[in-house]
Amino acid sequence: MISTNIVKKLKEIIGGENLFDSPESRLAYSYDSSPINAPLPDVVVRPSTAEQISQIIQLANAEKFTVIPRGSGTGLSGGTLPSENSIILLTNHWNRILEIDQENLSVWVEPGVITAVLQQEVEKFGFIYPPDPGSASISTIGGNVAENAGGLRGLKYGVTKNYVLGMEVILPTGEILHTGGKSVKDVAGYNLKDVLTGSEGTLGIFTKILLKIIPKPETSRTFLAFFPTMDDAAKTVSAIITAKITPSMLEILDNTTIRCVEDYTHIGLPIETAAILLIELDGKKSVVDDDALLVNEICRKHNATTIKVAQDESESVKLKTARRSAFASLARATPTTMTEDVAVPRSELARLVSRICEIGKKNDVRIGTFGHAGDGNLHPNYMTDKRDAKAFARAEKSIIEVEEAAIDLGGTITGEHGVGLYKKRLLEKMVGSPSMTMMRTLKQMMDPNNILNPGKIFDLKPKCEGPLPTDREQIKKFEDVAWI
Amino acid sequence: MISTNIVKKLKEIIGGENLFDSPESRLAYSYDSSPINAPLPDVVVRPSTAEQISQIIQLANAEKFTVIPRGSGTGLSGGTLPSENSIILLTNHWNRILEIDQENLSVWVEPGVITAVLQQEVEKFGFIYPPDPGSASISTIGGNVAENAGGLRGLKYGVTKNYVLGMEVILPTGEILHTGGKSVKDVAGYNLKDVLTGSEGTLGIFTKILLKIIPKPETSRTFLAFFPTMDDAAKTVSAIITAKITPSMLEILDNTTIRCVEDYTHIGLPIETAAILLIELDGKKSVVDDDALLVNEICRKHNATTIKVAQDESESVKLKTARRSAFASLARATPTTMTEDVAVPRSELARLVSRICEIGKKNDVRIGTFGHAGDGNLHPNYMTDKRDAKAFARAEKSIIEVEEAAIDLGGTITGEHGVGLYKKRLLEKMVGSPSMTMMRTLKQMMDPNNILNPGKIFDLKPKCEGPLPTDREQIKKFEDVAWI
Repeated sequence: MISTNIVKKLKEIIGGENLFDSPESRLAYSYDSSPINAPLPDVVVRPSTAEQISQIIQLANAEKFTVIPRGSGTGLSGGTLPSENSIILLTNHWNRILEIDQENLSVWVEPGVITAVLQQEVEKFGFIYPPDPGSASISTIGGNVAENAGGLRGLKYGVTKNYVLGMEVILPTGEILHTGGKSVKDVAGYNLKDVLTGSEGTLGIFTKILLKIIPKPETSRTFLAFFPTMDDAAKTVSAIITAKITPSMLEILDNTTIRCVEDYTHIGLPIETAAILLIELDGKKSVVDDDALLVNEICRKHNATTIKVAQDESESVKLKTARRSAFASLARATPTTMTEDVAVPRSELARLVSRICEIGKKNDVRIGTFGHAGDGNLHPNYMTDKRDAKAFARAEKSIIEVEEAAIDLGGTITGEHGVGLYKKRLLEKMVGSPSMTMMRTLKQMMDPNNILNPGKIFDLKPKCEGPLPTDREQIKKFEDVAWI
Repeated sequence: MISTNIVKKLKEIIGGENLFDSPESRLAYSYDSSPINAPLPDVVVRPSTAEQISQIIQLANAEKFTVIPRGSGTGLSGGTLPSENSIILLTNHWNRILEIDQENLSVWVEPGVITAVLQQEVEKFGFIYPPDPGSASISTIGGNVAENAGGLRGLKYGVTKNYVLGMEVILPTGEILHTGGKSVKDVAGYNLKDVLTGSEGTLGIFTKILLKIIPKPETSRTFLAFFPTMDDAAKTVSAIITAKITPSMLEILDNTTIRCVEDYTHIGLPIETAAILLIELDGKKSVVDDDALLVNEICRKHNATTIKVAQDESESVKLKTARRSAFASLARATPTTMTEDVAVPRSELARLVSRICEIGKKNDVRIGTFGHAGDGNLHPNYMTDKRDAKAFARAEKSIIEVEEAAIDLGGTITGEHGVGLYKKRLLEKMVGSPSMTMMRTLKQMMDPNNILNPGKIFDLKPKCEGPLPTDREQIKKFEDVAWI
């Protein structure tokens, strides 16, 4: 617990009205959207300038407490969870769009801007901000940059890091660093921007972010295609890419997910269907027309039984509802649902799908799988009940086996949710010892006192492998928001 | 000079036939395409496995000599120049394309593959590898990745780092690190790949590289547009972007360059024209048709006097000849030509152009400017004579003033050529002290003995600013190749 003297110093820096230490406040910031228990933070602070953050960080280094930056807390890997002797540092109140520069296709934003708000604002000027994490309606840009968030438009448009042009960032020593800028080409020195992006709050706190925007495509078209087997759907994905078509969305739902979504939303999905692909094309109308014909043909050739095409924007939104409701629908279907985030090379998608089925069957765990098929990035959801110790252990075992399968297939244990606390266990197995050494050394070099979001991504000293921590048992459910 | 004992040990690692220490060999590898004198390397080695490089690096750490990796030596910032007590390590003989994976849109290559060869090979399968540095016909992929090379298609397709998916790299400690892979989404740990890319041979030696390829656009169309003033041409660039058109090439040549190109190539350029834009559109035919009409209209509106459209591929190549010959044409026009590589936000292009003119006029230096207008990335060429000390000093002064102008305009001292030895002077002024500290610490952490390409990008200990080193006086001329 930090001393009253430190609390006093924090109040001097940010003003008493921006420090919260009631039990309610501490509890409210003791969890995020991951299924992990964490200790309460000692206090919660809401600084309002980069200089204040710098002073807080300097104080943390002097007094040896730890600082956990936090946006909306929508992360699924525990990246914003408190640790012992920590304070939560809020950035979500800094929510101004500072500049929309149409000539240089860029925007300056504060870290607390909500992703969907930015998307709507730039659309007014005829642009889009492509990264589209499922949590866009509540996640912050600062959090997106910290996690290098992915989402539904990754296949065609890439992920958050592809849109970060520059930043103001407070380093773990309290130094204020500016890097990047509006020049689209810049090779002056090491690329610091891209290592800070996706560093999960362990290497810096973003206080201003420069993002790239792009012209809004002329039109878009949305399809739902129903398939008799998951294998047919997975092979359709490969066939679309091989035909040199790049959809802006190419999402998959398995039968378990379809049943849960229908049970939740009653939008009329055929619950006998083994798999659904959600496909969106965008671009010039003439191109979308041509590609749509081809996509239709490819789906039919791979045994699609029905293909629904949205006739207008509201129908398109309706078709996307199935996909956007997937996480919430699965989460409410069983007492405990745990979400995975494996990704594999696209060619291995069908193999991953069948490995997930085998693992579920072998371990007697119901798994609902959906995700970004076009990216090879799937979210298997393990449907279990934490009160049933044996069933829960079988689910835990399945998670590890699916992660190992992803590694086997040349893939990754996390495509877009980050490592946080949730994925540390298999990180070294995946990236290898030289990479782990380089990551640890980088962290130690930049944060010698280990005060910024410690223990996320990796422990500084390697620990022996063991069973997953039992505090993963606290699985929260999200009834109202679909956000993966 | 390294000892005969070390030479013996090197021969044991790579075989005597792969070590060159004749005066001719040492001289041949004592320079690259930059205008900088350097000492002779002690020996030149040609390893053929990652393990051999690892052993050489370990020997270098033990015996404290330095290792300078080198591809084709086409770099323009001195990145492959020897330092005292150094050996040159060749990678350009490793030139196999190991795999073209059509389903995952990726290729595995060895570092010595020539950029243009890769481009041609993937085109056979209907793909393109978009990065297109001017030196593509001789530069290696390893060098491109080390420098994060840019080129003519940066505006639409980005630069080399946007296409690096993974790598095998030998670290300065001799460790062999694998990072990245074919999963298009991967957030497992820090993004090491993007800090190694563009590290100019100071953080690692690439032994295998995984690159992204994309479907070949259906068609392309090439234009040359002639303008009565540079300002008209620069404003046309902005107008095209503002109209939400993204050409695959958008290149500019000023009057001095036009005159030199015509004098060299006799392709019939109007030598009274103040500026030429080379514009290429690519994509689906229907889209290219629409955009072409609009580009034509925008050029006319900005006072273009003539617009030439290529009717077929051979005419397109002919139109591009003007741009591709720019560097060689300027280099032969005066005894000494020094090439710059500044970039600014696109909106500042017209201002940069006029600042370059003012600086040339004020200092009485003839400057021929061309470059990647769509990226805001210009190559002013200072035409002087090193034998005339006063004239040469005026050119040197102009270089610094143009770099300072770029910084003033929110730009960079190097858009694509790298810092190397040539751009160290103003790096700190541009990126600031916290970034310099982070870069230096990163280097020291990864290369504690400073054995890998030392002194490139920055000196480990800051030096006082002073006049440019006089060894910049050795300006080489390139008569036959157009490569910027």
